Amino acid sequence: MTRDPLSLPEPLEISLPNSTLSLSRRDLLQGVGAAGLAATIPNLATAATRGGDVAAIKSVVARQHDDMIRRLRDWIALPTIAAERRNLQEGAQMMSAMLTDAGFQHTEIIQTPGTPAVFATLDAGAAKTLGVYAMYDVKQYDGPGWIAPPLEGRIVEDPDLGKIMIARGAINTKGPQMAFLAALHAIRAAGRKLPVNIVLIAEGEEEVGSVHLEEVLNKPQVAQALSRCTGMIYADAAQSPSGDVTLDLGSKGMLEVELTASSQAWGRGAAEEVHSGYAAAIDSPVWHLVQALATMTSPDGTRVTIDGWYDDIRAPTPHELALLAKNATPSSEESMKKIFGVRRWLNDVPYPQAVERLANAPTANIEGIYGGYTGPGGKTSLPARGVAKMDFRLVPNQTAKGAEAKLRAHLAKHGFGDIDVKATGGVDPSETREDTPLIAAVKSVYAKEGVPLTINPRNPTSGPTYLFTNPPFSLAFSSFGLGHGARFHVPNEYYVIEPKNPLLRGFDGATSSFVELLYALA
Amino acid sequence: MTRDPLSLPEPLEISLPNSTLSLSRRDLLQGVGAAGLAATIPNLATAATRGGDVAAIKSVVARQHDDMIRRLRDWIALPTIAAERRNLQEGAQMMSAMLTDAGFQHTEIIQTPGTPAVFATLDAGAAKTLGVYAMYDVKQYDGPGWIAPPLEGRIVEDPDLGKIMIARGAINTKGPQMAFLAALHAIRAAGRKLPVNIVLIAEGEEEVGSVHLEEVLNKPQVAQALSRCTGMIYADAAQSPSGDVTLDLGSKGMLEVELTASSQAWGRGAAEEVHSGYAAAIDSPVWHLVQALATMTSPDGTRVTIDGWYDDIRAPTPHELALLAKNATPSSEESMKKIFGVRRWLNDVPYPQAVERLANAPTANIEGIYGGYTGPGGKTSLPARGVAKMDFRLVPNQTAKGAEAKLRAHLAKHGFGDIDVKATGGVDPSETREDTPLIAAVKSVYAKEGVPLTINPRNPTSGPTYLFTNPPFSLAFSSFGLGHGARFHVPNEYYVIEPKNPLLRGFDGATSSFVELLYALA
Repeated sequence: MTRDPLSLPEPLEISLPNSTLSLSRRDLLQGVGAAGLAATIPNLATAATRGGDVAAIKSVVARQHDDMIRRLRDWIALPTIAAERRNLQEGAQMMSAMLTDAGFQHTEIIQTPGTPAVFATLDAGAAKTLGVYAMYDVKQYDGPGWIAPPLEGRIVEDPDLGKIMIARGAINTKGPQMAFLAALHAIRAAGRKLPVNIVLIAEGEEEVGSVHLEEVLNKPQVAQALSRCTGMIYADAAQSPSGDVTLDLGSKGMLEVELTASSQAWGRGAAEEVHSGYAAAIDSPVWHLVQALATMTSPDGTRVTIDGWYDDIRAPTPHELALLAKNATPSSEESMKKIFGVRRWLNDVPYPQAVERLANAPTANIEGIYGGYTGPGGKTSLPARGVAKMDFRLVPNQTAKGAEAKLRAHLAKHGFGDIDVKATGGVDPSETREDTPLIAAVKSVYAKEGVPLTINPRNPTSGPTYLFTNPPFSLAFSSFGLGHGARFHVPNEYYVIEPKNPLLRGFDGATSSFVELLYALA
Repeated sequence: MTRDPLSLPEPLEISLPNSTLSLSRRDLLQGVGAAGLAATIPNLATAATRGGDVAAIKSVVARQHDDMIRRLRDWIALPTIAAERRNLQEGAQMMSAMLTDAGFQHTEIIQTPGTPAVFATLDAGAAKTLGVYAMYDVKQYDGPGWIAPPLEGRIVEDPDLGKIMIARGAINTKGPQMAFLAALHAIRAAGRKLPVNIVLIAEGEEEVGSVHLEEVLNKPQVAQALSRCTGMIYADAAQSPSGDVTLDLGSKGMLEVELTASSQAWGRGAAEEVHSGYAAAIDSPVWHLVQALATMTSPDGTRVTIDGWYDDIRAPTPHELALLAKNATPSSEESMKKIFGVRRWLNDVPYPQAVERLANAPTANIEGIYGGYTGPGGKTSLPARGVAKMDFRLVPNQTAKGAEAKLRAHLAKHGFGDIDVKATGGVDPSETREDTPLIAAVKSVYAKEGVPLTINPRNPTSGPTYLFTNPPFSLAFSSFGLGHGARFHVPNEYYVIEPKNPLLRGFDGATSSFVELLYALA
């Protein structure tokens, strides 16, 4: 959930490990956490009356620690890898069993053409219902360099962080997921009634693009259950290594396409690569592709010039702009530049504008391009085909479908209608209002726990959360959870079990944060 | 010599085998051979007085056939392959020995940082001196599919062509080269004095770009010898399978470059590939490259728009235009379209204009382009580097150096001065006037032999011949020689030894054509 679900397969060097993303968010926003705390904190009175409940539950959390870590290790031992179609049914079954064990009265495996999803409900007879979006798949773990067997869940001492569990899935997402389930176990073991009902949907193919998630959500029983929810969370470990948290109120959408210019489709150029001397009389599909691409941005490559691209974009609100301005501190600029090895921001914009663009600017990006001879030296040939892989980040109220239609119309209008446009992925932007009960509850827990919080209007990456935030469900959505982990998708993925830094929370602290949230939501 | 010397290494699929080139030339020009014969035929009177000499020599040619084929086989058995630095000295030594054997009084191996060249002179006390440019290297022969051992020189029966020798170097260029030497042997064996003196330069690295040829030509003894020449030939087997010959009066020049746009050189963008979400705030070197390329041609990719690109181009002469118009027959269009799999000519120009462009239009071609992720599917990354390999064909009076300077100035002026331009090769256009004694002699021999001849003002490919045709030497240059062979650079390269088609010449006919030329030049 901290990466694009569409980047498939995602090689190690580009999968931004969580540490980088967290660092970037933290550094982007550091120093404004205290200001973030000034936001509305609801339910303080109610929370006080329930202080006794929470205290009792927290003591159970500590007692059940070893049992929960054992369960987490068992869960890690079964890798469900959608890209390899490995343990698809087994993963769903184990997820289902764990949910039953945690108190869900109804669990149901929903088969899809991909991996099955698990749908579960826990009716506590409460007034409110919380939705939980989860995933039970993990990335491959075949890279070299693991310091512990990736399916063992070994806990090792890290000199900076403290006790950390090294495993595939440790942070993404079996660790935080187990901390959430541990909260349910603890509440029951403490003899308390769950303060909210829960509807949980766990998909098994988040790592390959959540291809069938929409289909699952549209099942009548699922849709009906979702319609009862106050909001939806994703169990995360949201703290950076230094303990602060950034709360994103949405994410950009994305259209991902592969453009192919070929002699065959164009009706021009040579059938195959020919000697480049003949370029004087024979058209070049690679030039055709380059010239088509060039029409899509300003000459400096920074503004999208596809016809009508900005038509549907809503202006940022003054509140969003104020949040972004606050986040653009000199120290965060310094950190960002260091992390990315960037000397100047795009088109020489000042940093506050770069921060604003990360949240609000649509992009046209060339992921990759190739055509003709790409080996050593030269080759005097005229190629017959060129390919560009692109992604377009979208902001409210752009949609992936709308963007695709505009791209196609633009190409056709400018004489490039023959270029094949293959949409390889599309997600819409996602938005959650800050003044919703869910976000108020999330903020209240972070405030109570003394965690520096930064609010970011929109994450620059993309994910499937629009399926919850957009109609028909229109749910508030938030990642939530104390704790820290990193190295998503790469060797030595970790989750902090017992931190050294007092601002960081370990497994039990994460569990307690979920307990707090459930009470704050009630 | 029928390919670009700069295309290094040249994979099989793009090395147009001679058959294709010949076909294209033939088909491009077919039907106008008879008209070509109407051109000036000089020395007819002189030739008549020497008819007896030539007849006597031709009978020797037949007698020495087996001996010359044996010599050719010996020569083929020693492959000199510059790309592999194989037999460099051995090749030069054998070349030198063969020249001595053929009557050259002076032979000299000139060492270079690459392969040595062989410089030789044969002083016959004649009034005129003919220059001969030769190469003693061959391409690799490791491809599969040879029907005879590539270094054996086996003669096999081809159902269409007759007796052909299959070998690496058979046509490119040991076969025609040996036919030329056989002419010198035959003249001597017939007791005749050579009608012209000969200056011969054989390089050993034509197949890797003639890198040190200029250096060799500038040696004082070589330069002095060249300054005495009436013109320069390259011993070729110029007939197409059906027997006709196209005579190119020049070739285009070429600038070959590799353009690299990188964050590092630009001072923009991220140091390494980063998540594409950050494209909203970080510049893209691949966009930078695409936008830079887009400034180099018209939107349809067909006209070069680099500043000042056309400034030095001389207008085609009415005679050149007339030759080209004559060559653009409907049947040649049909053949060309079939050969290249082309449905429409560049920018929908009619065929006569396509033919004219092949001779007269400068080109900007993208040989290949790559940057970012080029594997299966997509990858949501913002790349840090992009590369385009380009070649620019040049026409008189453009020069490779001038073109490179214009390209650099254009990039700088349009904000792309950071893009690294690495010139990987450069040759100037080559031109020989049709009214020179050399071309007149060449045409007279073809006419005497009854071979349909087409005159083409300029070949669309490029080679090192400008080193001879441009100052300081300013020599007329022509490929010359009857005979036929094909499959340059690929398995089963062949040279016709005894043809079935009466219009084609075999080894002895090729030898006789050289005898004829020497007398025609005298």
